[in-house]
Amino acid sequence: MKYKAEIDIMPLKALLDPQGKAVSISMQNLGLSEVSEVRIGKHISLNVEATNETEASAKVDEACKKLLANEIMESYEFELSEV
Amino acid sequence: MKYKAEIDIMPLKALLDPQGKAVSISMQNLGLSEVSEVRIGKHISLNVEATNETEASAKVDEACKKLLANEIMESYEFELSEV
Repeated sequence: MKYKAEIDIMPLKALLDPQGKAVSISMQNLGLSEVSEVRIGKHISLNVEATNETEASAKVDEACKKLLANEIMESYEFELSEV
Repeated sequence: MKYKAEIDIMPLKALLDPQGKAVSISMQNLGLSEVSEVRIGKHISLNVEATNETEASAKVDEACKKLLANEIMESYEFELSEV
């Protein structure tokens, strides 16, 4: 079966996020002063072939650990859905 | 009230995504040949101050259009939750 994974990879809470900080400041300049605490990460969507959801989940987890996320600086979470 | 917005910004389906393509190829090399159709975009979380959800939604939409997303190359969607 084929599963679609939607992965969010975000900078760890404890770390500064200079890109998010820059966007926060730009928001003020654009007149959107109600916006705060901007954090910017990656969103990755991919398809994975597996016999069941547990196996699909294990494969996506492996992909995140090996290639997609840098666990020293980032945390990841994902959702699976059958396609 | 304060709302948290989780925004996903992805390259349009019609466009090539060279970063996603590179990751797809790397997956094969890492022995994860079950992974395909990788597309890479941005995930942005932010807080917005507004009197109700409709107003919060309008503000986040404005932020996406003005600054966060490039609508020529990207599409965006977001979810709001009260914090």
